[in-house]
Amino acid sequence: MANWQVIAGGITAPKGFRAAGIAAGLKPSGSPDLALIVSDSEAIVAGVFTTSQVRAACVDYCQDLLEGKTSARAILCNAGQANACTGEQGMEDAIASAASTATALGLPPESVMIASTGVIGQRIKIDALISGIPDLVKALSADGGDSAARAIVTTDLVTKSIALETQIGDRTVRIGGIAKGSGMIHPNMATMLGFVTCDAAVSPQLWQDMLRRATTKSFNQITVDGDTSTNDCLLALANGESRTPAITAAGPEADRLEAMLTEVCIHLAKSIARDGEGATCLVEVAVTGAMSDRAAEQIARTVAGSSLVKSAIFGRDPNWGRIAGAAGRAGTPFDQRELSISLGEFVLMKDGTPQDFDRSGASTYLKQQSERSSIAMAKILLKSTEQANDLVPVESQAPFIRQTIEIEALSHPVLITLNVGDGPGTGKAWGCDLSYDYVKINAEYTT
Amino acid sequence: MANWQVIAGGITAPKGFRAAGIAAGLKPSGSPDLALIVSDSEAIVAGVFTTSQVRAACVDYCQDLLEGKTSARAILCNAGQANACTGEQGMEDAIASAASTATALGLPPESVMIASTGVIGQRIKIDALISGIPDLVKALSADGGDSAARAIVTTDLVTKSIALETQIGDRTVRIGGIAKGSGMIHPNMATMLGFVTCDAAVSPQLWQDMLRRATTKSFNQITVDGDTSTNDCLLALANGESRTPAITAAGPEADRLEAMLTEVCIHLAKSIARDGEGATCLVEVAVTGAMSDRAAEQIARTVAGSSLVKSAIFGRDPNWGRIAGAAGRAGTPFDQRELSISLGEFVLMKDGTPQDFDRSGASTYLKQQSERSSIAMAKILLKSTEQANDLVPVESQAPFIRQTIEIEALSHPVLITLNVGDGPGTGKAWGCDLSYDYVKINAEYTT
Repeated sequence: MANWQVIAGGITAPKGFRAAGIAAGLKPSGSPDLALIVSDSEAIVAGVFTTSQVRAACVDYCQDLLEGKTSARAILCNAGQANACTGEQGMEDAIASAASTATALGLPPESVMIASTGVIGQRIKIDALISGIPDLVKALSADGGDSAARAIVTTDLVTKSIALETQIGDRTVRIGGIAKGSGMIHPNMATMLGFVTCDAAVSPQLWQDMLRRATTKSFNQITVDGDTSTNDCLLALANGESRTPAITAAGPEADRLEAMLTEVCIHLAKSIARDGEGATCLVEVAVTGAMSDRAAEQIARTVAGSSLVKSAIFGRDPNWGRIAGAAGRAGTPFDQRELSISLGEFVLMKDGTPQDFDRSGASTYLKQQSERSSIAMAKILLKSTEQANDLVPVESQAPFIRQTIEIEALSHPVLITLNVGDGPGTGKAWGCDLSYDYVKINAEYTT
Repeated sequence: MANWQVIAGGITAPKGFRAAGIAAGLKPSGSPDLALIVSDSEAIVAGVFTTSQVRAACVDYCQDLLEGKTSARAILCNAGQANACTGEQGMEDAIASAASTATALGLPPESVMIASTGVIGQRIKIDALISGIPDLVKALSADGGDSAARAIVTTDLVTKSIALETQIGDRTVRIGGIAKGSGMIHPNMATMLGFVTCDAAVSPQLWQDMLRRATTKSFNQITVDGDTSTNDCLLALANGESRTPAITAAGPEADRLEAMLTEVCIHLAKSIARDGEGATCLVEVAVTGAMSDRAAEQIARTVAGSSLVKSAIFGRDPNWGRIAGAAGRAGTPFDQRELSISLGEFVLMKDGTPQDFDRSGASTYLKQQSERSSIAMAKILLKSTEQANDLVPVESQAPFIRQTIEIEALSHPVLITLNVGDGPGTGKAWGCDLSYDYVKINAEYTT
């Protein structure tokens, strides 16, 4: 299945994309806070957005745009102010952001999509943003993916970025993606912010359908704290610069492209979960035997989101009763006499009956998975500390340094598997543990 | 409306009820762990239970019983082992518990309802339980309400108990209740454990309907950590010993009884929320202007359950953006341009637009409400420390002392009010803040 390979470059890996990230003075810390992604040619655009009744101005702006058109050239993203709950002024700021960017790029305003992240209720520092746009456009580069990834984060410890490459026919096709977390993460139809670039040619409806399905299996299956954001937004551009024949209908090429798109989204989603506020490990929950994939996904997400399960994992406690309890309240029927639960290799419950298992071994497993993943994280942080002395500390007191989560840091999840019967449904979800630091970060962030 | 008064005695305040709580050796700590409530005459029984797919044996046992009969004489409750996820052995233990109690009381087995709380996946220590029953029956007393309240708790810091009295016709009618929390609290059709006694005469269907409606406005509207328990169970006995005319249909008497029942349930529910694991304050969320009461209740509960709102309250941070965000994702439609939010007296948002407000005053309000409520809690703990030197410390390291949360401790909630439009729907929910101690308690509890 996985007939693609990981390549460098993030969102600028696909052909015909440039990006940049600069510090425009929107964050009090002076960290990078303004990112721009530009396609050299008109790109098909797809988007999924928060289902919250309370939406940021940028979400409404993009949704309105997408009702009328299927292509775009650029995405502008600011970090620092979410521009949510900012009333009519918020929409005026959104329009002004897009318009200034369009002018600087020599494009019509409707070619620019926008996204914001940061503190809810705060207007964008619009003067700083507008003053920054000429420099941002000047900084655009075909190597700018990492720099854009750095400029969209807030309380993230590391940046989230990936690029994959495959062959379609005799041509190379690439998909790149960046995302940011790391609190208010319980996406419903989208994540906090994710941007995907692709150089395949694909028809608008197909691209939108692919993105929606990929979201269902990735961003919609992660949870950090159960709070769906006002700004959730995933935008994907496909510009056709790979010069492959246009993919306009279902078939092997479409399947191949969708599989790779899904993989990019899953990587970014897992990166967000691993970097959840205060997290010490990545938790993967895999459910089989459910009545449908939807039911399995629902159970997986409920277990991954349970505060009690998350606290137990932080305490390195193989408390399977809490896993069973969370599965039971997921809102999807199953027979508890068919419930089996494993933690890594340890079988904790089989067909509804608790099993004797090596409790201290299971606890050691939890400890080891966290340590392995944390060592990989520390390596990334160390590397970026050495390489990135120019990075200014962000607003939090924590020593926040941004660098891509590499694949190693995601390859040691705490693995919880559940079988709930003999149905055909399977599903996965990802989350993290609940630590003192989650409370610390969220009790102290903001005002 | 509130034409009743608070009286002493808890569940033994209504006529014709006796209760007891003893230490039978089920908890490792040696604390009281076995409670019995007995009605001197046959009592109408109503019950609501967890909606989880994973249910304790005692829940299945009581639900089965209630399908066939509408009266009971006794409720046995053990703390220490939840008897959930214990397979067929769990049901055998449940049956044996009820049978032994029935024998000791000279009753048929089907007259005894049972409930369990404690660690999921652990069998009841059935030998200790059965050996304890003769002493438990001997200890039954018309003053035994507090002692029963003490024997049903686990990680609770204080016991939860209340009794109210009113006049129906020329007769005095009383309702008493006890409950326990304090984690895995996100009831859905019931709470962890709640037991209500009443000496009015009421027809079975009416009593069940009243209990269900009262639950909707009380236990189903609290949340500590979003985890619905496997053992949620609320049982209510009405024995007619007040010798009032039987209430068999809707009317002023039924309304009066239901209002008082609802008040008892709300008090117990608020007590559970205030004593949520790690809580430093009680949070009350009141919603108006929704399309229906159901919609308002849903929004209120979502705000009360938001980890981000809860963390902000612990940080004494009037972060209204998180309140708006939580309201938005509650799954019930409203127009964000009509959203208004207040915190105590401080208007944070009006008709969708952020307001200038005294941020440090609002933060002080959060601090004060927590301090006032904590001082009341400390007084209770102090009083019970002096009065109850005979109490053994429970399994947690914390100096757990059990005593009724008096009304003072519940009278200083952090009050969040939201108006979401001009609809007729109103609703309330209760929760608590999210502190370091929540994580500590749940990372260290158990195995």
